[in-house]
Amino acid sequence: MAENEDTNKAQASPDFDDNFQGKLDDLFIWRRDVRHFLTDPVSDELIDELLDAASLAPSVGNSQPWRFVSVETETVRQKIRDIFSACNQEALQDYRGEKSKLYASLKLAGLKQAPVHLAVFVDTSTQTGSGLGRKTMPETLQYSTVLAVHTLWLAARARGIGVGWVSIIDPEEVRLVLDVPESWELVGYLCVGYPTEEHSVPELVRSGWQDRDNAARILHKR
Amino acid sequence: MAENEDTNKAQASPDFDDNFQGKLDDLFIWRRDVRHFLTDPVSDELIDELLDAASLAPSVGNSQPWRFVSVETETVRQKIRDIFSACNQEALQDYRGEKSKLYASLKLAGLKQAPVHLAVFVDTSTQTGSGLGRKTMPETLQYSTVLAVHTLWLAARARGIGVGWVSIIDPEEVRLVLDVPESWELVGYLCVGYPTEEHSVPELVRSGWQDRDNAARILHKR
Repeated sequence: MAENEDTNKAQASPDFDDNFQGKLDDLFIWRRDVRHFLTDPVSDELIDELLDAASLAPSVGNSQPWRFVSVETETVRQKIRDIFSACNQEALQDYRGEKSKLYASLKLAGLKQAPVHLAVFVDTSTQTGSGLGRKTMPETLQYSTVLAVHTLWLAARARGIGVGWVSIIDPEEVRLVLDVPESWELVGYLCVGYPTEEHSVPELVRSGWQDRDNAARILHKR
Repeated sequence: MAENEDTNKAQASPDFDDNFQGKLDDLFIWRRDVRHFLTDPVSDELIDELLDAASLAPSVGNSQPWRFVSVETETVRQKIRDIFSACNQEALQDYRGEKSKLYASLKLAGLKQAPVHLAVFVDTSTQTGSGLGRKTMPETLQYSTVLAVHTLWLAARARGIGVGWVSIIDPEEVRLVLDVPESWELVGYLCVGYPTEEHSVPELVRSGWQDRDNAARILHKR
């Protein structure tokens, strides 16, 4: 009974005051997808803090399906860069004229400079959570992993560390290069490190690729 | 030139100090998937703040593919509840014995009490972002929408507002009931309102359904 009480009794919850709410909004405003990194190392302790934060992410049925792989050897990193280069070259073919020139001028990943590479997978075979909540929407397993990536991203930015999510990459090739189980599916390949600059405006807005879209902010009603 | 300088010059970035980092970790710890709501209304101003925050989420190629639908009429809400009930009844059939009893005892959605219902869709047909970053991983469009949901969720919790993500629901039936374009795909159906209690431990842990999984926290190395 005493044990149950310990487990079930709500602790005093923290006071998220106006000041915190404002700073949290600043965090959302100043978080960036970073492609320009300093080569300065990020300490293992900080990476541990980021993984601890990521582990607090919500997940469907509490399935915690995220799997983190730190890519450390130069040999493997070069293979990842080669996959990116091939995919990026192929993507360029989709654009014509000015858009093609602009695409070619964009720096879309910090795979050379970033001191930490984290590949984040979803284990699609996990039994954790006993399938709760994912019968009609099995994709919530992938979505849970995205929530962990975003939690890590925000925790990193609050510590002055930048994260860049690389998606111009063949997910199955990455899985093979990293030699992880077949049931693991790549969700995101993250470059992590100290950014060369901080900014409140997304790089794709500054470069003229894509501005804010007010239509997305509309609240439709039913 | 002056305009370019205004746009490109980094503003003074906010100071995310130790105190903020600690409070942010508290936010991750105290965010919950809420199923027990008070019926007290949430003001339109607060909902606006949450949508403003969500609009700051990262998105692939800055595509901002999220679409928000506020479900307001009792008729439509009842149809949503009926879809949930049918899906939940069917999910129950997957469990046997004690697990079945436990599943049946869980409250898995706050669809009756929550004063605000938000259906969040991804517009899979959007041209915004010109396809950048999603050629090899088209699912990043859905993932971008998940990032918006999570941003809204955290902004809500910081304001004392709870969010519950309902996934025990047929996404195509919801789309039809809400009469949105065919290219819109349901990512999450959110119950939003003031929670009856605040807690640092997930409800599925407290109920004995699924505990924390330390294996998910492992950092694999390559």
